[in-house]
Amino acid sequence: MTAIRIDGKVVAQRRREQCRVEASRVAQSIGRAPALAVVLVGDDPASHVYVRNKHRACAEAGVDTHDVRLPDSCSSRELRAAVERINEDDTIDGLLVQLPVPDAIDPAEVRGWIDPSKDVDGLHPENVGLLASGTPRFVPCTPAGCLELLREYDIPTAGREAVVIGRSLIVGRPMATLLSTKGVDATVTMGHSRSGNLKEICQRADILVVAAGQAEMVEPDWVKPGAAVIDVGIHRIADASRPRGSRLVGDVAPAVGEVAGHLTPVPGGVGPMTIAMLLQNTVEAAGRKA
Amino acid sequence: MTAIRIDGKVVAQRRREQCRVEASRVAQSIGRAPALAVVLVGDDPASHVYVRNKHRACAEAGVDTHDVRLPDSCSSRELRAAVERINEDDTIDGLLVQLPVPDAIDPAEVRGWIDPSKDVDGLHPENVGLLASGTPRFVPCTPAGCLELLREYDIPTAGREAVVIGRSLIVGRPMATLLSTKGVDATVTMGHSRSGNLKEICQRADILVVAAGQAEMVEPDWVKPGAAVIDVGIHRIADASRPRGSRLVGDVAPAVGEVAGHLTPVPGGVGPMTIAMLLQNTVEAAGRKA
Repeated sequence: MTAIRIDGKVVAQRRREQCRVEASRVAQSIGRAPALAVVLVGDDPASHVYVRNKHRACAEAGVDTHDVRLPDSCSSRELRAAVERINEDDTIDGLLVQLPVPDAIDPAEVRGWIDPSKDVDGLHPENVGLLASGTPRFVPCTPAGCLELLREYDIPTAGREAVVIGRSLIVGRPMATLLSTKGVDATVTMGHSRSGNLKEICQRADILVVAAGQAEMVEPDWVKPGAAVIDVGIHRIADASRPRGSRLVGDVAPAVGEVAGHLTPVPGGVGPMTIAMLLQNTVEAAGRKA
Repeated sequence: MTAIRIDGKVVAQRRREQCRVEASRVAQSIGRAPALAVVLVGDDPASHVYVRNKHRACAEAGVDTHDVRLPDSCSSRELRAAVERINEDDTIDGLLVQLPVPDAIDPAEVRGWIDPSKDVDGLHPENVGLLASGTPRFVPCTPAGCLELLREYDIPTAGREAVVIGRSLIVGRPMATLLSTKGVDATVTMGHSRSGNLKEICQRADILVVAAGQAEMVEPDWVKPGAAVIDVGIHRIADASRPRGSRLVGDVAPAVGEVAGHLTPVPGGVGPMTIAMLLQNTVEAAGRKA
């Protein structure tokens, strides 16, 4: 691989250390540690791993966590009641409902229940709108983390072509918004599953952010030589040569490292940044009470 | 000109007639005509023309209007009080504050004061966020009108390259959101004043929406042969050959009509659609009370 490896673990660790210092400062000011409530509905194994990692990162940074678990059979009304109890609890600064929620519950409704001032995932319509209006309150964690990586590696954005593959509310759309915002100033193309010519679209990117949800979709001949490639995907695929019988891959084939100028690995690229940004949003939410 | 001329006047007239029928139906249901309040601060001559046109269109469609005028010296607090009085008035369904507001007032604050359920301009953060989340309550009028024109002229969007020039909250950003939304499915690039290569970016567009605010910026060699070009700009420029000594032009040079497949004229393209969509949003707001 000739590309510079963007080390998300190192950047995230630095950011988490900053959060720890800031959390301690905020704690002195408000008389308690910043606190995050994580609501987990059902038994999705990946969600359990994510939630465990969030709790661990919070503990290391001096952020209290409240673990709210509801059964897979939980009704929409029961989940709403749980969210509203946390909304009203002044000792909790941040609140997220781990996705996905069971099929019987509409995630769009859930996003609207969360107090926007505690919405550290940045998915409440008001926070989505504040970001799109250029006055963000909470930036969704994954795109915020991707932008941090670009900054930490001094990758210029102004006037350059950025391509975002994927148009989800959680990654693709806010990523496109951030990249096109004043001060970042990239020319942004958002491609998606209905784009006829994803390969050609990717080829024009100086900065390529892939959140397509398709394992190793982006091949080396999709990438402009020297481009910065940010891989948001994470998939577990079978691999008999590994002790576990499987390995983690992203949306970008590893061979892209022979063409790109910068590349995030999977794991160890975007993933650690997402948690660091969640910490940052939580500490900021608490800090606003100071 | 070889391009098909997209006649915004005709499409808007048809839509206004539909609004008239719907307004009458809603009036029977809620016991009064749908009502729109327009708040105008100061003496901007163009704003006075726009507001007069809005009142006239409402009157023709059977929508009541309330005309609220405040002096240029109006403070932020006075404007807020006026907005809140309208928010609380159950006999008013839609409310807009005509832009621009005087320099002493922050338009971002004004947007947040308006009751989101009366925000027929669709600029309150919550409504911006609902649009970006794929569950719109009110779509901003100008981009909604542009999309209507594409639909009325059977211009395909799915999997095609759309380019939006301009990243304003009122036009560029919601236009990019609409074009990339599920069901519309264009691949959308948003270019802007900091894009280094606007000409090349425009050249890739099957659908080109220009809201750059620069008179006749887009020249024929910027446009792919056969592209659909939507011109959102409107500027009055000096022209001694005209009786008034001036004429109206858009962001697109008229000679683009020799290259494009479809082109909106200025005036008579996007402008009339903006008012028709305002009517539609107002009648819908009233209809939700039925």
